[in-house]
Amino acid sequence: MPTSLSSTQVADATPQPKILQATDSAYAYPLLIKRILQSGVQAGGPHRIIYRDQQSYDYPTLYQRVCRFANALTDLGVRAGDTVAVLDWDSHRYLESFFAIPMLGAILHTVNVRLAPEQILYTLQHAQDTWILTHDDFAPVLAPMQAELPAIRGYLRLTDTPEIATEILPYVGEYEALLAASAASYEFADFDENAIATLFYTTGTTGDPKGVCFSHRQLVLHTLNEVNVLQAPSTDLLHGDRVYMPITPMFHVHAWGVPYSATLMGCEQVYPGRYEPQVLLELIQKHKVDFSHCVPTILSMILSQAQEMDFNGWRVLIGGSALPKGLARKAKSMNIDVRAAYGMSETCPLLTAAFLPAQVRAADFEEQLEWRTKTGSPVPLVDLRLMDVDGHFVPHDGQSVGEIVVRAPWLTQAYFKDPQSSTHLWAHGWLHTGDVASIDEYGRVQIHDRIKDVIKTGGEWISSLALENLISQHPQVLEVAVVGVPDPQWGERPVALIVPHQPDQAPSAAEIRQHLKQAVSEGHLPKWAIPSQIHCVEQIAKTSVGKLDKKRIRRQLDTQAIGAASFISTHE
Amino acid sequence: MPTSLSSTQVADATPQPKILQATDSAYAYPLLIKRILQSGVQAGGPHRIIYRDQQSYDYPTLYQRVCRFANALTDLGVRAGDTVAVLDWDSHRYLESFFAIPMLGAILHTVNVRLAPEQILYTLQHAQDTWILTHDDFAPVLAPMQAELPAIRGYLRLTDTPEIATEILPYVGEYEALLAASAASYEFADFDENAIATLFYTTGTTGDPKGVCFSHRQLVLHTLNEVNVLQAPSTDLLHGDRVYMPITPMFHVHAWGVPYSATLMGCEQVYPGRYEPQVLLELIQKHKVDFSHCVPTILSMILSQAQEMDFNGWRVLIGGSALPKGLARKAKSMNIDVRAAYGMSETCPLLTAAFLPAQVRAADFEEQLEWRTKTGSPVPLVDLRLMDVDGHFVPHDGQSVGEIVVRAPWLTQAYFKDPQSSTHLWAHGWLHTGDVASIDEYGRVQIHDRIKDVIKTGGEWISSLALENLISQHPQVLEVAVVGVPDPQWGERPVALIVPHQPDQAPSAAEIRQHLKQAVSEGHLPKWAIPSQIHCVEQIAKTSVGKLDKKRIRRQLDTQAIGAASFISTHE
Repeated sequence: MPTSLSSTQVADATPQPKILQATDSAYAYPLLIKRILQSGVQAGGPHRIIYRDQQSYDYPTLYQRVCRFANALTDLGVRAGDTVAVLDWDSHRYLESFFAIPMLGAILHTVNVRLAPEQILYTLQHAQDTWILTHDDFAPVLAPMQAELPAIRGYLRLTDTPEIATEILPYVGEYEALLAASAASYEFADFDENAIATLFYTTGTTGDPKGVCFSHRQLVLHTLNEVNVLQAPSTDLLHGDRVYMPITPMFHVHAWGVPYSATLMGCEQVYPGRYEPQVLLELIQKHKVDFSHCVPTILSMILSQAQEMDFNGWRVLIGGSALPKGLARKAKSMNIDVRAAYGMSETCPLLTAAFLPAQVRAADFEEQLEWRTKTGSPVPLVDLRLMDVDGHFVPHDGQSVGEIVVRAPWLTQAYFKDPQSSTHLWAHGWLHTGDVASIDEYGRVQIHDRIKDVIKTGGEWISSLALENLISQHPQVLEVAVVGVPDPQWGERPVALIVPHQPDQAPSAAEIRQHLKQAVSEGHLPKWAIPSQIHCVEQIAKTSVGKLDKKRIRRQLDTQAIGAASFISTHE
Repeated sequence: MPTSLSSTQVADATPQPKILQATDSAYAYPLLIKRILQSGVQAGGPHRIIYRDQQSYDYPTLYQRVCRFANALTDLGVRAGDTVAVLDWDSHRYLESFFAIPMLGAILHTVNVRLAPEQILYTLQHAQDTWILTHDDFAPVLAPMQAELPAIRGYLRLTDTPEIATEILPYVGEYEALLAASAASYEFADFDENAIATLFYTTGTTGDPKGVCFSHRQLVLHTLNEVNVLQAPSTDLLHGDRVYMPITPMFHVHAWGVPYSATLMGCEQVYPGRYEPQVLLELIQKHKVDFSHCVPTILSMILSQAQEMDFNGWRVLIGGSALPKGLARKAKSMNIDVRAAYGMSETCPLLTAAFLPAQVRAADFEEQLEWRTKTGSPVPLVDLRLMDVDGHFVPHDGQSVGEIVVRAPWLTQAYFKDPQSSTHLWAHGWLHTGDVASIDEYGRVQIHDRIKDVIKTGGEWISSLALENLISQHPQVLEVAVVGVPDPQWGERPVALIVPHQPDQAPSAAEIRQHLKQAVSEGHLPKWAIPSQIHCVEQIAKTSVGKLDKKRIRRQLDTQAIGAASFISTHE
């Protein structure tokens, strides 16, 4: 007797499951991505899908375009089990790919276009892609790789300027032309809900990028649940009558799955293409965008460009890194409603969100800050606990600290073709997040640090995140990173890098120390946690998705690659 | 290769699946009812579960009580695969049974206590129940049946007056005493999500009651989806900060599944026990109930008792029968927000709901009526179509009429041990609802009638529902039923039975005819649809769940069992 989670295909990390089978009975109802789209068309009706100032159409048209795309792919020879790579900025075409490719039983590989070319090549080879859809902007990256990609059966052109001919890749066709030539209806078959739908690669701060894949079942369950979270009054982020625009790339964990959730709700959706601050600001104003999500550095960048703009209640869900209180206050001053959520590539991603109980929503903003900036409590169906290094659970008492481990219906079951990392990921039968946290009496998760970013000094642990949060509240600080550097006496000592709001008003180390001493006197920080070195710099190293790249920062500090040239002011 | 919906156990209608198996891998995450409760405890926190004026406790206590109950059942010898019958009014005990019994892997049989004793006996035998939990009120019904229930291993007493001793059944214990003596924690195992969780019997207007069962997976998916529907702004019915009270019995399709949804949301929940209008009204006022659901006749009864009470925006979802416009207006006048939904026992039940788009919500009430009283559009994941008698789909053009057929993840897969009816239910691979409808340009389902209640006259069809809806709008009409009676000339002719608001102000047949002629002149009704007979009566036959019992009404009219005694006024 098989269990219902017949997950062997995914567990084996085989990209080509035999997925197209007749269902075994009349009443079998597999959880397939096509159901999200079909329900969304019913709910969305006249609401529009908008791509910059170039495209705008309603939900019935979205469905027809997905059908046209499916017909075009089928005519080209794309079959169930094929892996189809997409390289594009956030677009309506990407949204259509989110549906059409998995709905055919093929696997959508969302390529991280911010990776270095050699890493992009690695992922295309590792994923065993057989088709590539690429925006003109990435064709020059792909062109020299063709000889190393013999499995590719065809390149398909995505472009905003089809009238400009290009011969850079041997295209089998251009997206809009292929759609126009294809029929507007398609009978999408039922198949096993455990079939892989999507595949993408983590940015891999250590070693090669790792492949993460999700099944139809996992994405449908994540979507149903994310819709609940987004429209609950305790978050009040998105519902069918609001306007959505992603500012987390669609190649990165399906833009946190929100394009699927927004489609199920039937929202108006705005796709901004390449993230250019002025374009983002114009789209937010023009289309009255109600909801977006992004990492703190991106929000920080947008705010620094926005001058005194009133964002009119724009709701922004912050993930990827901790939401600093300083940034939350700045956002509030521009009429932006921010709150934190937590997840990671391996978790599809949603694990927790900052739900505000009614009495907190009624409180003033400073009181709300504690709730908004903590990563909140687990969303429904997520079993989240703290584990020590021996695999024992740690109490949820607000004090005890352990690694966050989770079980949920939408966790990646294995790194793609990487059994060794997978075993580590699922040690003791729980997915290990690599984040160290405590959980308080309200069930709120307080992330203290990445396990590998914790600073060990004199036998004590310092949370780099806690230090960053405190320093970010200094009025002259735009961005801050704190890392541990080796120290012969203490083991490690904290070092802070600061990007000031204005280079000519960079705070001195003494000012920052004074600021932190205030926190020490209020009991928020032990005295010995004040960084030994504090540098103002022009920029801080980040990963391809905009997170602080602490591995690189540590390496830079170690090799003194952050030299005087990049320091605005150096102290100590 | 098995499909994911390994549904053989349920399809075979075997009540004792071997459900307790180890999951096959670390990351298997079956959709089990325990996850609803565990997530609800996190969300609900201090919100309370209230039973009349007798019990009130918070969510952590709910979880502990479910654990105590599970320990008590385990100690008594209840095992996975056992079927446990519950006979109770709507109570906190019932809510705890909704969780504890399936969470053990046992099957919860919710007994329809309004059935005749011989039918209750039939269902207890047919379900192969091995344990019975019964409220004192039903012990006298069960006591004489003991000899015919040899499979019962124990009776458990549910009571509001434990201090009054009773020897009417050989109880193994009393509920609260057993809980008090049991440990407050329990490790609930994982098992196959397709295991049967619940079983109940339809009221069976023809022949014996039919058993309907649902799996853990189906109930979890129904719950996730129902939460989405209830908290969407286009319905605005229930969310975590609102107060819920069922007025559809918990034995009937799990009170439409809302106790599960309310628990997942962490709502305050009020259980009213036996439905007594004054108690219901007091509970609504005392606990500021925001949301309930019921059939039209129950709402009608409540309103007739409420005098001029202001219901303060009480939201009521109406199902089971069509929502008459007259009742909707009456409710509005008492500050009640009503809207229709549609489903049936076999569909868990939710299929459609009256979602109001933003522009309709902004319109005045008379404009909203069209949306509120139609049964709305399909909820997410429900594929709803119209089918003709030959199994062909009928267009959704607002005009064409066909039987509603559906596919969804939460449809009963077979009548329990009744393969013949099951084949009919799932003809052509779609679940047949027995309802005749059209679907308009907005995707709204307009139910015309039950297939068997359509009145065929002179080669044309008359919808008994449409006639009832029109007649209900006459100011003197409290309730109305229209059925077809045999007619030698026309085949069938419509007959209307009316319960007036006040017996001494019963409308005459001529007044009702005049009222309907108005509708004829406005094009809402063909002239020949005006009933041939119109009777005012004291009451109209209803099923055990409060729906018009048209089979019985037709029989009564046929045998003249509705005699002069029960007629207030007779015409024609």
